[in-house]
Amino acid sequence: MLKNYEIRKYQMPQDEIRALVKEKREILVRQQQIIKEHKLPVYVLIEGWGAAGKGTLIGNLIKELDPRFFHVIHMGMPNEEERRKPFMWRYMETIPEAGKFVFLNSGWLDETAEDVINERIDDTDLEQRMKQIRIFERQLKDNGYLVVKLFLHIPKEEQKQRLEKLEEKKDTRWRVTEKDMLQVKKREKYEKIYDRILEATNTGYVPWNVVDAVDKRQALLQVLHLLTNQINQAIENYKVLPEILHKDYPLLKMPKLSQVPLNQEMTKEEYEERLKELQKKLKKLHNKIYRKRIPIIIAYEGWDAAGKGGNIKRLTSALDPRGFEVHPIASPEPHEKARHYLWRFYHRLPKDGHIAIFDRTWYGRVMVERLEGFCSENDWKRAYNEINEFEKELSDWGAIVIKFWVHIDKDTQLARFTERQNTPEKQWKITEEDWRNREKWDAYEEAVDEMVAKTSTENAPWFIIQSNNKYYARLQAISTVIDEIEKRIS
Amino acid sequence: MLKNYEIRKYQMPQDEIRALVKEKREILVRQQQIIKEHKLPVYVLIEGWGAAGKGTLIGNLIKELDPRFFHVIHMGMPNEEERRKPFMWRYMETIPEAGKFVFLNSGWLDETAEDVINERIDDTDLEQRMKQIRIFERQLKDNGYLVVKLFLHIPKEEQKQRLEKLEEKKDTRWRVTEKDMLQVKKREKYEKIYDRILEATNTGYVPWNVVDAVDKRQALLQVLHLLTNQINQAIENYKVLPEILHKDYPLLKMPKLSQVPLNQEMTKEEYEERLKELQKKLKKLHNKIYRKRIPIIIAYEGWDAAGKGGNIKRLTSALDPRGFEVHPIASPEPHEKARHYLWRFYHRLPKDGHIAIFDRTWYGRVMVERLEGFCSENDWKRAYNEINEFEKELSDWGAIVIKFWVHIDKDTQLARFTERQNTPEKQWKITEEDWRNREKWDAYEEAVDEMVAKTSTENAPWFIIQSNNKYYARLQAISTVIDEIEKRIS
Repeated sequence: MLKNYEIRKYQMPQDEIRALVKEKREILVRQQQIIKEHKLPVYVLIEGWGAAGKGTLIGNLIKELDPRFFHVIHMGMPNEEERRKPFMWRYMETIPEAGKFVFLNSGWLDETAEDVINERIDDTDLEQRMKQIRIFERQLKDNGYLVVKLFLHIPKEEQKQRLEKLEEKKDTRWRVTEKDMLQVKKREKYEKIYDRILEATNTGYVPWNVVDAVDKRQALLQVLHLLTNQINQAIENYKVLPEILHKDYPLLKMPKLSQVPLNQEMTKEEYEERLKELQKKLKKLHNKIYRKRIPIIIAYEGWDAAGKGGNIKRLTSALDPRGFEVHPIASPEPHEKARHYLWRFYHRLPKDGHIAIFDRTWYGRVMVERLEGFCSENDWKRAYNEINEFEKELSDWGAIVIKFWVHIDKDTQLARFTERQNTPEKQWKITEEDWRNREKWDAYEEAVDEMVAKTSTENAPWFIIQSNNKYYARLQAISTVIDEIEKRIS
Repeated sequence: MLKNYEIRKYQMPQDEIRALVKEKREILVRQQQIIKEHKLPVYVLIEGWGAAGKGTLIGNLIKELDPRFFHVIHMGMPNEEERRKPFMWRYMETIPEAGKFVFLNSGWLDETAEDVINERIDDTDLEQRMKQIRIFERQLKDNGYLVVKLFLHIPKEEQKQRLEKLEEKKDTRWRVTEKDMLQVKKREKYEKIYDRILEATNTGYVPWNVVDAVDKRQALLQVLHLLTNQINQAIENYKVLPEILHKDYPLLKMPKLSQVPLNQEMTKEEYEERLKELQKKLKKLHNKIYRKRIPIIIAYEGWDAAGKGGNIKRLTSALDPRGFEVHPIASPEPHEKARHYLWRFYHRLPKDGHIAIFDRTWYGRVMVERLEGFCSENDWKRAYNEINEFEKELSDWGAIVIKFWVHIDKDTQLARFTERQNTPEKQWKITEEDWRNREKWDAYEEAVDEMVAKTSTENAPWFIIQSNNKYYARLQAISTVIDEIEKRIS
């Protein structure tokens, strides 16, 4: 894209360009209000050569915007803490809320190129990253985001001259970084890698826009033109439903819930003895994965009163408290609701070597959100693939992903509900909502069967925990975690 | 506290101790539910010598707790990013939500001691820190937190032996850090500095508890005993009103709002010319403070329709977008409401060298929360001092703190409300709530007068922006920011 890039200029006098800039800027200001009304989040990524004028361009773009409705984020390279999360993690953190702009000064293109140049990643890693970028961008677009990607291009000689000019003055010298100088020195190498990433992530849904940045006013006009047009388009198209993809993740054959036997028996003595053994084993393994820096993500879903809480407790009491976190997931708060539904789960991902246990999860999308109509049919149908992609990213990052459906039958639930109702210390555990959900048992069962069938991937399998007998269920969960860790580290 | 520490032991057989531990642990488990009901946040800081058994102790404390109601946080030393925030910032980030536990594995004692040992701070810094710690702890306590501080003490020989034992085995060797070894080597120096910090932060409201950690079971019993007692006390005392402090921060003499003239006149031409000059000047200064790493915090409060938004826009359009952020403050979200009211503002503090502009602020406590009864009388009366302390901490950190009350008279507000109502593009800016607030003008005016009088400190002054004439107001705000920066860097 850069190699054969032809300079595209507005062939008109300066004052006409100035007038056009003013006009487009006024359009952008009016669009702010429309964006807010339509709750459209606009995510603008500005990449380009050092000294191409990214900062100045952003300054010019936002000049007339209401500062309450945009954020400018200068990414820089990730720090040590951030390197312990998946690659896209820190970008996911920056995505705008509905109705707001985020301008990103450099991003995943720049970071990836630097990692290649500095040989922090090899060819396989690069291919994987570019795939993750495509998925990230598509998911944003499908979930109602407008993503605009710009690359500010200047020729080698121009870049060299600009940097030299900055170097001359004491006041501006600090702005020239080693990276900038390296870009001039290794221009061809940079061009090659930029080109490769640009091509690989130049998709129909989120295309790249290479901007000729030699003349600053021309560049500004070009960008204002692009941005206002794409906002218009996004608002016109907001009712066009995204395609529902069924990508080929190898799926495991899973039983239906109704086929899972629940008649396990176990004495308290047997349970306590076995629990002790398993907890001891898990404790040692936790130490190992901590040292090997393997992250673990454990997702708990299940029927109300199935015994999730007690099950989690038996698991965590075997773990070093410095190395795990339990995230109880309730309905999303306003700032969470205003973003991509996976945002709040990304946000809670563990560092490598740590364990995150989710008490209810992103599967809410295809269960409660589906059944209560909190999202559209297209949304939840799309979600199976989106979730598979999310979990694949976690595995590719190196995580062990384990998903538990804690299962009981309808009679057992009734018995437990009744017991809670009749025991004063347990009454807080039972609410009207539990009874209402119970009435929808069959619909939920159907949704769970579909979910388990469509998201039991090889890298992130579901395990049906048989929890009519809580003792049995607890041992089953801990054993499963042990098995999955052993499979990985052996 | 450590020098003359006498070993306090339970003089009873092992099995009695074991039984007592079990008993206390059951109490703690029952207290969980009470904590939840009373919305009591419990913040447990565990400090102590390396190899004193902090991790093991925490593991034993939480063994039976519901993992959804606690977090264990291992602090470590701050990273580069964290060092660019005020000292207490990362601790404030970790405070528990109402009804939950946080166990902090090492904290402000350890960090401060390390900074002294490694000569990162001098004696003056140390005194300032200890003062900040006392304020932090008192504010938490006054705002309904239970803060429990433990120091696990072992003699030098014991520590040495434990470390040697860990070093022996391949499996545990990695747990011995350089810091641990240094502690043995420089034991006397460490003891001295620990003692100094312990004494200085051993307050009546949040005392230290030195725990003899030579025998692990004895230590656990001691801690369970302390913790369950302190929880009981906190729940019994939750209705005791905290003292309202009036600490001596030098206050500036401020006029009442009614005394502020609002008859400024200015032509558009005059305004535009002057604005250009000032913006140019501010731009240069922004560059300077960025390079000098001075943080700036600008707080905007004011009447509805006073022109805050436009005022902020003229300020920010002079700034490099990579160096500032505007935070519109609405009513708190659930996770914000569940914490100390200053938490969400701490959370949004800028890095050094950056500017944070708050569109509405922490002063909500003594205005809307006071007048609408969202907090108790004791809460808002205490807040003047709490806010002065907060802002003093910001200044001590190196920040320039500027507070604007954007002022208009009642007639001007009516004229602007009516114009908004009658102009289709502006109707979204006016709501029923604005009219309701207008009815309470006099009560608000009284609250603002009191607020300005009580919180105009030398280090964080209020500026009344005269905004009947918006042009005048904008220039006034920008000039003020310029003046305050120049005062600092000259």
